Amino acid sequence: MSPFIEQLTTDQEKEMKRQLDVYRQGVQDIIPTEELAEKIAKSLVTNTPLKVKLGLDPSAPDVHLGHTVVLNKLRQFQENGHTIQLIIGDFTGKIGDPTGKSSARKQLTDEEVKENAKTYFEQFGKVLDMEKVELHYNSKWLSSLSFEDVIQLAGKITVARLLERDDFEERLAYGKSISLHEFFYPLMQGYDSVILEADIELGGTDQHFNILMGRHYQEKFGKEKQIAILMPLLEGLDGVEKMSKSKHNYIGIDESPNEMYGKAMSIPDPLMSKYFELITDLEPAEIAQIKKDLHAGSLHPRDAKMLLARTIVRMYHSKEAAEKAEQQFITIFQKGALPEDIPTVQWTGNNPESLVQLLVDVNLLPSKSEAKRMIQNGGVRIDGEKIEEVDLEVTINKELIIQVGKRKFVKLLG
Amino acid sequence: MSPFIEQLTTDQEKEMKRQLDVYRQGVQDIIPTEELAEKIAKSLVTNTPLKVKLGLDPSAPDVHLGHTVVLNKLRQFQENGHTIQLIIGDFTGKIGDPTGKSSARKQLTDEEVKENAKTYFEQFGKVLDMEKVELHYNSKWLSSLSFEDVIQLAGKITVARLLERDDFEERLAYGKSISLHEFFYPLMQGYDSVILEADIELGGTDQHFNILMGRHYQEKFGKEKQIAILMPLLEGLDGVEKMSKSKHNYIGIDESPNEMYGKAMSIPDPLMSKYFELITDLEPAEIAQIKKDLHAGSLHPRDAKMLLARTIVRMYHSKEAAEKAEQQFITIFQKGALPEDIPTVQWTGNNPESLVQLLVDVNLLPSKSEAKRMIQNGGVRIDGEKIEEVDLEVTINKELIIQVGKRKFVKLLG
Repeated sequence: MSPFIEQLTTDQEKEMKRQLDVYRQGVQDIIPTEELAEKIAKSLVTNTPLKVKLGLDPSAPDVHLGHTVVLNKLRQFQENGHTIQLIIGDFTGKIGDPTGKSSARKQLTDEEVKENAKTYFEQFGKVLDMEKVELHYNSKWLSSLSFEDVIQLAGKITVARLLERDDFEERLAYGKSISLHEFFYPLMQGYDSVILEADIELGGTDQHFNILMGRHYQEKFGKEKQIAILMPLLEGLDGVEKMSKSKHNYIGIDESPNEMYGKAMSIPDPLMSKYFELITDLEPAEIAQIKKDLHAGSLHPRDAKMLLARTIVRMYHSKEAAEKAEQQFITIFQKGALPEDIPTVQWTGNNPESLVQLLVDVNLLPSKSEAKRMIQNGGVRIDGEKIEEVDLEVTINKELIIQVGKRKFVKLLG
Repeated sequence: MSPFIEQLTTDQEKEMKRQLDVYRQGVQDIIPTEELAEKIAKSLVTNTPLKVKLGLDPSAPDVHLGHTVVLNKLRQFQENGHTIQLIIGDFTGKIGDPTGKSSARKQLTDEEVKENAKTYFEQFGKVLDMEKVELHYNSKWLSSLSFEDVIQLAGKITVARLLERDDFEERLAYGKSISLHEFFYPLMQGYDSVILEADIELGGTDQHFNILMGRHYQEKFGKEKQIAILMPLLEGLDGVEKMSKSKHNYIGIDESPNEMYGKAMSIPDPLMSKYFELITDLEPAEIAQIKKDLHAGSLHPRDAKMLLARTIVRMYHSKEAAEKAEQQFITIFQKGALPEDIPTVQWTGNNPESLVQLLVDVNLLPSKSEAKRMIQNGGVRIDGEKIEEVDLEVTINKELIIQVGKRKFVKLLG
């Protein structure tokens, strides 16, 4: 059963175990877990990279750290010389929703698909070496299938098996309609694996069923079966819900260093280890040490979180940007000092001017009523001094620093 | 709702009612029954024939009276000027069974499909005027469907609806596997109706679900919906099981007049009315009269059955053949007399010869042991006289009639 594992040299065996440790890090499930070692062994013995597949929805991508959980796992495979296969599911994208019920699944043109793929590429380039990545559009093989081919494909799967998918089972049980074409999405994903001869397919735990379709169809077509590596879903900054744009609990990988660092510092303490494991590029040993030190109390949670924040900014910007963001954060939030680069406004209006009007004019607050409320709540400072007088008239005859809340500053030049 | 019915002249209304009476004769179900009158009215008002569809399995046909139940209904439509659409389901025939499990659904070549269609044509020609029949092969439109088209088709039906088909529901409930491709057979049949714009589709009661698929898909494609006319299944000569070749309870439409007549006379009395209704071309009024007379006792069941047998032979051979077969039947079975044309053998063997050997030599019995047994059972007669002596030596010096059982005769010339 395990010919390649038995052929490994001592060095190769060590390398296999090292890779196994890396790949197992942070995963939710490997199915079947015992086959992964053999796949790596095959790659080492035959000196052939493994093909590691990730399917992508062709609708407009907006990548945040939640998405990078799988990307980081792909990066680990890439760093060990394996081949990453990104598949843009453009065939389904071009079809849209034939029932017309789902506005989410609108029909995309060739140009839109290409444009979205480009956006993926740019954003994924922050995690993966895109020059080594294989990019595939599944319309290439799916659009040329005939009805007869489809019947052959459908003949290789049972209705009962498809109804095992949690959402199908539930909808049928509760009398919610399942349109027959929906049965084809897992079939297509499975057939993609047949065509690409994938060794491993990655996805979130919600892809469990669909990825196993790949195994099923590879076997039916007489191919070697892929392994499913399922990654956990990442909770967002609220510590509860899955990270997503609609929940406003995300860190986008396109955000500025300061924004990214600040948001990372708001990750709840209990989630820190999970973030280290799932979205950073630190070595397993390093992460293990951090967890150990945190547990022993020799590492302060604040310091660990600063390392996490620094790591995230370094990954998506640079080491320098990370250090600068950290300095900025320390200056403002930890020492209560001013940040280095705050917007400067040359004042040309009334002089003196009411503070309430001034706050609106320099765009620190949207309306005079909000400006009043902010002053009443003690949220406004001039040159570091808290203002309590709502009717204050300000004479601008020198440089003044006006501050609203913790983070918003304007330097006013008289 | 019923614009055409309201446009009928008095004569047309009378004609519509006449046709309705003919079509309703013997049917199991018309769905929806209230739409049939409107369809006929449409045909009369617009002077356009209705399109009446029948789907045929492309596997080797061997037509018996059970099949003629739908053919006779088609004939009624044809006699009223409507168009018959026969669809050979060659697309599925050419695919075969993709699971490879059903040996019954073997893959057919183009030549085999054409050959089977020819056989259908020859046999159906005994009931229908084949020059007026439209013949279609559904591979014409099905084989050119792309995967995208199939998805669009699948998007117009729900899984729950498909699982309503009795056999699917049952198999799922009992854990028997349904291969996904099986869901496509009813879809194809439905799509055939879309393409052909059928007004009516005929079938046995077992076609209930599939024919309603036609209605479903015609509506989804914005076409006028067809009506399902479901015919009852015909019990065979045993009076219990559905007529079928494998049950040996059938009358084939290719059988000889004498065979056909003899078999028809063995139809159980309680089934006579059903046979009259479903497989003869007698007028509804005539059939009603027969039923009435049988019930009143003024028509003897034997005479009714002879009329039925004569009618069947007339339909598949000729009036003359029917009368001749009836005479033959009366001669042998009713009067105990000899049939007119029995095989004649000029004896050239031993003389005298043992009766046992003689029976084998003239092919009346396959072996001497069976010949002995038949004599012992009183089943052998010479010149009408029952023979009881097993060892009898026969001298053939004149014309002898040797009879085995009721129906086998040989005339021996010395």
